Amino acid sequence: VSDLNDLIIRYRKFTHERDWQQFHDPRSLILALVGEVGELAELFQWRGPQIADAADSNSELNRRASEEIADVLLYLVRLSDELNIDLLDAAHKKLSAAEQRFPAYAFKGQAPDKTQ
Amino acid sequence: VSDLNDLIIRYRKFTHERDWQQFHDPRSLILALVGEVGELAELFQWRGPQIADAADSNSELNRRASEEIADVLLYLVRLSDELNIDLLDAAHKKLSAAEQRFPAYAFKGQAPDKTQ
Amino acid sequence: VSDLNDLIIRYRKFTHERDWQQFHDPRSLILALVGEVGELAELFQWRGPQIADAADSNSELNRRASEEIADVLLYLVRLSDELNIDLLDAAHKKLSAAEQRFPAYAFKGQAPDKTQ
Amino acid sequence: VSDLNDLIIRYRKFTHERDWQQFHDPRSLILALVGEVGELAELFQWRGPQIADAADSNSELNRRASEEIADVLLYLVRLSDELNIDLLDAAHKKLSAAEQRFPAYAFKGQAPDKTQ
Repeated sequence: VSDLNDLIIRYRKFTHERDWQQFHDPRSLILALVGEVGELAELFQWRGPQIADAADSNSELNRRASEEIADVLLYLVRLSDELNIDLLDAAHKKLSAAEQRFPAYAFKGQAPDKTQ
Repeated sequence: VSDLNDLIIRYRKFTHERDWQQFHDPRSLILALVGEVGELAELFQWRGPQIADAADSNSELNRRASEEIADVLLYLVRLSDELNIDLLDAAHKKLSAAEQRFPAYAFKGQAPDKTQ
Repeated sequence: VSDLNDLIIRYRKFTHERDWQQFHDPRSLILALVGEVGELAELFQWRGPQIADAADSNSELNRRASEEIADVLLYLVRLSDELNIDLLDAAHKKLSAAEQRFPAYAFKGQAPDKTQ
Repeated sequence: VSDLNDLIIRYRKFTHERDWQQFHDPRSLILALVGEVGELAELFQWRGPQIADAADSNSELNRRASEEIADVLLYLVRLSDELNIDLLDAAHKKLSAAEQRFPAYAFKGQAPDKTQ
């Protein structure tokens, strides 16, 4: 599976069959998204920067992270659907902007400093 | 565009060309994601539950929301790529679980109560 | 109790007695804070804007909210302690700035618009 | 200054003088809090675990962190005030519970594992 539309449409159908659109105003969906991001953050809160364990599909951490990441995506998909936003198109536009703003030759190995 | 893989691969290429993988450990990406979720939340913080303005593609609010939602997706895509997680597959699995857990006939019009 | 210093010192002592300073670098504490904010958000995600239930000390929602709010404060206190930041002083300074920036006569009943 | 009540009362007065209580329902305040937590996270997103720079009162990072931490505290104070929650009392209760749950002798140098 690599088609995001299938997920969008499947979740929309899920929502309508339960008559849950009434709960899916933007603020509610954002609060729900924040809840899932919180669960994702918790998984990594007391860990070091190493990625080995986290990136191993057989680890418990990887399994848990994959569930929380999925939950975040689901609310993001639902939110953009309610707002009539083409999620993938918006992301490609932002990436195009980043490509312009951070030319590879000038930003090689250098993270943008957020305190400047 | 509806293929999520294109976005994943494009962002991976963007990262490698700038040698930015070194910054993309899970904790850093989650903190960056939290930053974007914060910007999304800010857009809706003093607003009512109405969706009209937010869902109108010509409104400034819709344009801003679409940018922040895109940023959240981008970091989510990057994070799952670093963790070798199949984002779409994981989301479909969670949705399957939700379909089982909340049968349409039993949860019609009723939001699950998080304080119980 | 109304002295914040007592809480700061008590939590510092708690941390040192368990030798947990090693885990309390800024990023770890922020991720932990995000986790608690997520739990707070979850409590309100499917609710309306009404405050009655939430503000009633006898309600389950109020009890749960008070626990999550406490957790957020605790990590905020720990973070500012590790960073040598005088939390109350910093908050009073921000409030002074807000008093200047939003004179009562000019902003009466008007929320600052975040999309402008 | 170490009395939290002064801050609570000052911010309440600030709010009432501007007639802003109408915006301060729990969900709005939580979304605003999330916005500030996002700004705090951004400051640390591409940094290592080292604390030296961040804890130095003369550094730009410390100054910025102190502002964002203050903003988080302010919304937390406002939220608990609207919900009639005694913030400090709630935090002391949670700390008492943690002291019981994690005896120093048993948890010395060991962070609780969130994936278990």
